[in-house]
Amino acid sequence: MLDYSKYYSNLAKRIKASEIREILAILKTKRDVISFAGGIPDPTLFPKQELVEIARDVIEQYGDDALQYSETKGVREVREAVCKFMYAKKGFKCDLEDVIITTGSQSALDIIARTLLDPGDVVITENPSYLAAIGAFKNAGGRLIGVDIDDFGMKTHVLEEILRSMSEVERSKVKFIYTIPVAQNPAGVSLSSERKKHLLEIASKYDLLILEDDPYSYIVFEEGVDKTPLKALDREGRVIYISTISKILAPGLRIGWIISLNDLTRKIELVKQYVDLHSPTFTQYITAEAIKRGVIDKVISRAIPLYKAKRDLMLKAMKEHFPEYTWYSKPVGGLFIFAYVYKEGFDAGKLLPLAIEKYKVAYVPGGSFHVDGRGANSMRINFSYSTYEQIIEGIKRLATLIKEN
Amino acid sequence: MLDYSKYYSNLAKRIKASEIREILAILKTKRDVISFAGGIPDPTLFPKQELVEIARDVIEQYGDDALQYSETKGVREVREAVCKFMYAKKGFKCDLEDVIITTGSQSALDIIARTLLDPGDVVITENPSYLAAIGAFKNAGGRLIGVDIDDFGMKTHVLEEILRSMSEVERSKVKFIYTIPVAQNPAGVSLSSERKKHLLEIASKYDLLILEDDPYSYIVFEEGVDKTPLKALDREGRVIYISTISKILAPGLRIGWIISLNDLTRKIELVKQYVDLHSPTFTQYITAEAIKRGVIDKVISRAIPLYKAKRDLMLKAMKEHFPEYTWYSKPVGGLFIFAYVYKEGFDAGKLLPLAIEKYKVAYVPGGSFHVDGRGANSMRINFSYSTYEQIIEGIKRLATLIKEN
Repeated sequence: MLDYSKYYSNLAKRIKASEIREILAILKTKRDVISFAGGIPDPTLFPKQELVEIARDVIEQYGDDALQYSETKGVREVREAVCKFMYAKKGFKCDLEDVIITTGSQSALDIIARTLLDPGDVVITENPSYLAAIGAFKNAGGRLIGVDIDDFGMKTHVLEEILRSMSEVERSKVKFIYTIPVAQNPAGVSLSSERKKHLLEIASKYDLLILEDDPYSYIVFEEGVDKTPLKALDREGRVIYISTISKILAPGLRIGWIISLNDLTRKIELVKQYVDLHSPTFTQYITAEAIKRGVIDKVISRAIPLYKAKRDLMLKAMKEHFPEYTWYSKPVGGLFIFAYVYKEGFDAGKLLPLAIEKYKVAYVPGGSFHVDGRGANSMRINFSYSTYEQIIEGIKRLATLIKEN
Repeated sequence: MLDYSKYYSNLAKRIKASEIREILAILKTKRDVISFAGGIPDPTLFPKQELVEIARDVIEQYGDDALQYSETKGVREVREAVCKFMYAKKGFKCDLEDVIITTGSQSALDIIARTLLDPGDVVITENPSYLAAIGAFKNAGGRLIGVDIDDFGMKTHVLEEILRSMSEVERSKVKFIYTIPVAQNPAGVSLSSERKKHLLEIASKYDLLILEDDPYSYIVFEEGVDKTPLKALDREGRVIYISTISKILAPGLRIGWIISLNDLTRKIELVKQYVDLHSPTFTQYITAEAIKRGVIDKVISRAIPLYKAKRDLMLKAMKEHFPEYTWYSKPVGGLFIFAYVYKEGFDAGKLLPLAIEKYKVAYVPGGSFHVDGRGANSMRINFSYSTYEQIIEGIKRLATLIKEN
């Protein structure tokens, strides 16, 4: 066999298989393990009958276009539907020329990273933050600086202090702040109204862009949470907004979108052109119809009580079974609880094989969500996918694992 | 408005809007223009009724999985179906672990480019070659070296001479040879059996990989064309093979695939993970069903006589109307004829606005298919999309444009 390593790019050389990913990949074959590892929706929410009808209607009514190549930015009618959806759900107006339909929000993250980052450039994120966003930024050569979070999201005074104490040279390398302001992944916390304003002020003061990732704000369980996107508060054109149907319709359609800004939209479009030509025309049309027919609204209205019930049950089980030396987030929405175990030497990553083999429970070790090597004692726990019975039993098992190790 | 240019990556700074793309983009609004510019299938070939049934069955039978997140490499059953399809159509066996399903073959090109190329690395291509492949390689920082083609594809003795005359340093930067061996885009020519062998020998001698792009070999009109993929002749594991359903089912589903090699497969998968997590699960399942149910076979058997008739008609019209100082390819398959106009000062790019405004006909200027600045006097002419009447009338208009300018 040839030694292929000599052909690899620096990116390919640098990128390593994640041991954790490997371990979690085998879960599918282990039916007796309760997995809180995925970030995946409850499939009972998929509006199958409606999607059968929509798929049929799309092919019959728009087939010549819906099955054909289409514009790199996205089908015009789909961008229009997304604009209306954004206005209805998020309260901001957008010009359809600033919308770019992407192949899921992962592709949005990748394309934006490539449009903005050169090797050595800096991205500031919440710490912990979404691991595949961190991956996309690193792939583009980005360096990550993390800002701690609490129950009200990113500690913006810490952010300001980080920026203030940077050398001018280092500061000039900061391109944007990446944030999931509402029902954050992995912690489920939301940025308070005051901090939103503060964050925008900081971006203005230090002349930075903000990349706002907003997949979860449709599914918020608590009254009184400020769901206003930064995009709606942005007066200076600093916020690039991304969202997706993955949590409110079906991730397998792979449709997300960017609401970008003027010239930047054009650049993102040009980069996307050679990345995938355009996102799937067929599932774009399906998405637009699901918006227009109120199917997404229906999924959302079913998802909120379902996920709230699951979260409540999981928190209750944790309260009952988790030892005192643990801290876990009380997510206001989304799909995840994030937990820290304050016990000497507790390493969630090292324990994962044992968790699966002996305790028959799985989670994502929290280290990979941290950008600074911390978080070995943390884990992300998904509550959206498992059944009620699995939640109760799985949390018991997890508690036993924590106590015994 | 902010000046966004200061935030751009080098890639974003480098990448420019193509004037030609802009001109062609407005074509949609000009119904009186006959366009030979696209590379798009005849929509009458889309098996709409079958796709309605398949979409329904996929949702009803596999909905929980088909609408859900899925493996980065592609759904296992889909990779299996692709392997069987490859064996049936192309005669080579593949291990499903070496298959990676991509979001169209453009995404395959992009991900492979990022896995193999660092800025300054060299890719050798046919000249002319597929412009969006050239774009993907350039985005990854690749430098392109072109090898002239004739009716039998890439002139492999020229390739060998280029490699031989390179300095050792320069040669060490060559990562792979990109080729579309059968029914090439843009010229429609095919690599002869002798040259295929020669190409593999050269790759072996100079220790290079070959990237084989094979979207058109399903649609070959001529008897006696050697359609064997290089992949089937590869004894050393040098050929990365990519293909797509875009020309034989529907491009709007955006499904392509890579048949890769051992460790390299793993690296490509890791790169893809942060590019788009995975390709659309739903259209992957649809593709697998279309393969299994023989729907793709049916499309192919309808496409061959249809496109052959269109090609024949176009060649006939060209013979009748094109002046003697033109040369055009006689494509054995695919969707395109490539033409050169040997007339002092003829510039297909500069003439395009006039072609659209005055002569009411459009094409893609050939310059962008060349990697060395040549080809201003060339154009790519698509015969798959237009009706018979449009082909006759459009070629007349094109001939008039050529004669009058």
